[in-house]
Amino acid sequence: MDFISVIEDKKSGRELSKEQLTYFANAAARHTVPDYQLSALLMAIRLQGMTPRETADLTLAMANSGDMLTPDVGGVALDKHSTGGVGDTTTLVLAPLVAACGGKVLKMSGRGLGHTGGTLDKLESIPGMSVNIDEQRFLEIVRTVGCAVAGQTKELAPADKTLYALRDVTATVDSIPLIASSILSKKFASGAGAIVLDVKTGSGSLMGSLEKSIDLAKTMVEIGTHAGRNIRAVISGMDEPLGSHVGNALEVKEAIDVLSGRVRGPLLDVSLFLGCQMLLTGGLVSSEEEAMLKLRRALKSGAGLAKLKEMIAAQGGDAAVCDDVSLLPQAPVITDIIADRDGYLGGMDTTRLGLVGRNMGAGRVRKEDPIDPAVGFVMKKRIGDRVKKGDVLCTLHARTEESAAEARDGVLGALRLQDAPCPPAPLILALVTPEGVRRF
Amino acid sequence: MDFISVIEDKKSGRELSKEQLTYFANAAARHTVPDYQLSALLMAIRLQGMTPRETADLTLAMANSGDMLTPDVGGVALDKHSTGGVGDTTTLVLAPLVAACGGKVLKMSGRGLGHTGGTLDKLESIPGMSVNIDEQRFLEIVRTVGCAVAGQTKELAPADKTLYALRDVTATVDSIPLIASSILSKKFASGAGAIVLDVKTGSGSLMGSLEKSIDLAKTMVEIGTHAGRNIRAVISGMDEPLGSHVGNALEVKEAIDVLSGRVRGPLLDVSLFLGCQMLLTGGLVSSEEEAMLKLRRALKSGAGLAKLKEMIAAQGGDAAVCDDVSLLPQAPVITDIIADRDGYLGGMDTTRLGLVGRNMGAGRVRKEDPIDPAVGFVMKKRIGDRVKKGDVLCTLHARTEESAAEARDGVLGALRLQDAPCPPAPLILALVTPEGVRRF
Repeated sequence: MDFISVIEDKKSGRELSKEQLTYFANAAARHTVPDYQLSALLMAIRLQGMTPRETADLTLAMANSGDMLTPDVGGVALDKHSTGGVGDTTTLVLAPLVAACGGKVLKMSGRGLGHTGGTLDKLESIPGMSVNIDEQRFLEIVRTVGCAVAGQTKELAPADKTLYALRDVTATVDSIPLIASSILSKKFASGAGAIVLDVKTGSGSLMGSLEKSIDLAKTMVEIGTHAGRNIRAVISGMDEPLGSHVGNALEVKEAIDVLSGRVRGPLLDVSLFLGCQMLLTGGLVSSEEEAMLKLRRALKSGAGLAKLKEMIAAQGGDAAVCDDVSLLPQAPVITDIIADRDGYLGGMDTTRLGLVGRNMGAGRVRKEDPIDPAVGFVMKKRIGDRVKKGDVLCTLHARTEESAAEARDGVLGALRLQDAPCPPAPLILALVTPEGVRRF
Repeated sequence: MDFISVIEDKKSGRELSKEQLTYFANAAARHTVPDYQLSALLMAIRLQGMTPRETADLTLAMANSGDMLTPDVGGVALDKHSTGGVGDTTTLVLAPLVAACGGKVLKMSGRGLGHTGGTLDKLESIPGMSVNIDEQRFLEIVRTVGCAVAGQTKELAPADKTLYALRDVTATVDSIPLIASSILSKKFASGAGAIVLDVKTGSGSLMGSLEKSIDLAKTMVEIGTHAGRNIRAVISGMDEPLGSHVGNALEVKEAIDVLSGRVRGPLLDVSLFLGCQMLLTGGLVSSEEEAMLKLRRALKSGAGLAKLKEMIAAQGGDAAVCDDVSLLPQAPVITDIIADRDGYLGGMDTTRLGLVGRNMGAGRVRKEDPIDPAVGFVMKKRIGDRVKKGDVLCTLHARTEESAAEARDGVLGALRLQDAPCPPAPLILALVTPEGVRRF
């Protein structure tokens, strides 16, 4: 097959065949076609689009471009994937809760990059905790504990690795077929039997508008269903950080606070909703009501927190952090940002807030940068909250005074205080299943 | 400036600024941006298009990416450029005729590639003839003789060199703004003051349809006028080879036959029409009628043929070929293709015919391939001609019997014999000037 003819076909608006898409995925994985031809095709796909059939074929071809796992975890392997957000610690809350309800959560996570955090970085803030565990041990923990979170061990979907890097430098990131195939190819390769997607929408998300987020969710649910997976997608709000805590150890602390029942609010609400969907896709319950009841019981009884302890211990971490969060790394400089006027918190630039955390040391500018587990900030107000002069807006946890001063300017620049009252930001906006879209 | 933002802007359908297009041209010329980013932008341009202002700015930026010549030839430097065809020997006919009428024809030509021939290769079939002459000598010949044809000496429009090669392998050749900027950037850099474009249309041309050819011509005339050049474009037919001869020495022979008055027909007609346009753009005549009268006189008096002799001699060639064409290289195997049925020649795949010539050795598969000057073929029938069983359709001039057999199949496969009579193919379809489009 001639790669120029593949580019020619897509450029001219023709549908690519399964053979052409497989050639493309394998060429990307094995670097047998030069990058300048791959990027020309990526731009043609971005501008001409792909049909659902093409997107499904590309996803499967990308999944098949490397190892395909068939994990034996003593049940349906459940997975949840978020398109990335700020203060988004749902994995650490819902994986133990779902495990406590009998689910088998096999979660391969990533590192933080850009303005979004990564679950692996968060877990590594727990003393002793390892996220680099071999496949056999990983599966054994899932079988016995019910949940484990680790990094990729084998080479899963290498085509995605090449294309993801190229898209980043050729302005072809914002393509629904390319985003969908990138996410799902890795899920298919990892052997997930039931997949719940958490598609973020709002100022801190990859997709700008709600309609685009729903389109992406529909595309992925269609592909997953076509590939024989139980799949559904939740559209959740990212107009502000989901939890109040942003930063690695800070987010682990918040997850423990939620699982111990000390803290309620948006992080718990979204985690419970996602947990429901996981139990449903896994066939462990027959209704949303039953799922919600089970999850609330696991929370109330402490079974969820117990599962988190088991998982931490199994992955070599100090489970005592679950009883005493002061064992987590602490930042030396803790300082409040105070409101200098009355008003209402009308909105915020959440991507910018995420970058403030990154610049404090909680994230990375380059892949190889080290992470400071202790730093970050805690938001004290949510969108719609009344603010009085002298109120604490946010508490910074910084490494140095200079870093705190810089972060203070960054946070204030990202918040919009206004005179008029305003409603809180929506949390769950829609649920997309193979049956259709339910909006809330 | 960030190149990703340039790609992003064009991808999103925004107009690029002069600064962005200059950055693009210089990055291509100096290889300061990776090819995969250049090719992503080329595809975005192909699919989103460019405004006339963008195309003009890109053309000037590409011209300015290397040396800019200001040739002193004792008059307006006249240039003619064909978009490429088969059996298209107009340069060798019209350059001497225009010189005989007082024009100064400074013609930088190219080599054959793909199915189209190149004037430099044709000239080199004349014993002793050199097309690699230094700039001073080149200009001196134009000043004294009135015409010279040579290869590029300096690095003209190096941005085009990079982009042309990339377009070829990324399916982005068929973009009017990219074709127009590629052609005109080299013309601007070479210092042509008056430019006549010969845009081919039909089965042997780059542009498929007449409307697309007219669009390309209009774009180029607009850009050239904007840049202060006297410019016009002729749309001429390439549904069959223009002359009957295809191959390097064979085409030189045909040009000599035409200039000596022995042969009339389409090659002469198109050459005269293009010659008229050159005299008009150069301001050497005040009407088309005056131009045609002068050119016909130069033909009849033998002044045109005399100019060709002078030019050949000045460039080191054996001018005696003009009196005795048998001094040109001759192929050892000369054989006829005979019609095996009655009918009419209804049409032909001219690109395929050009490739037959190339495969015989008249052209190149790769840039570095050698040329066989003697081989090619002579068409004995034109579209619309009646064919009787036993008529000669074509005479092959081959290096070997095997090559002749292969060429025979190729030529027969490219010709369409039919029962119904049909009209001849059109020769001159339109003239595009700054004032508008005149269709014939």
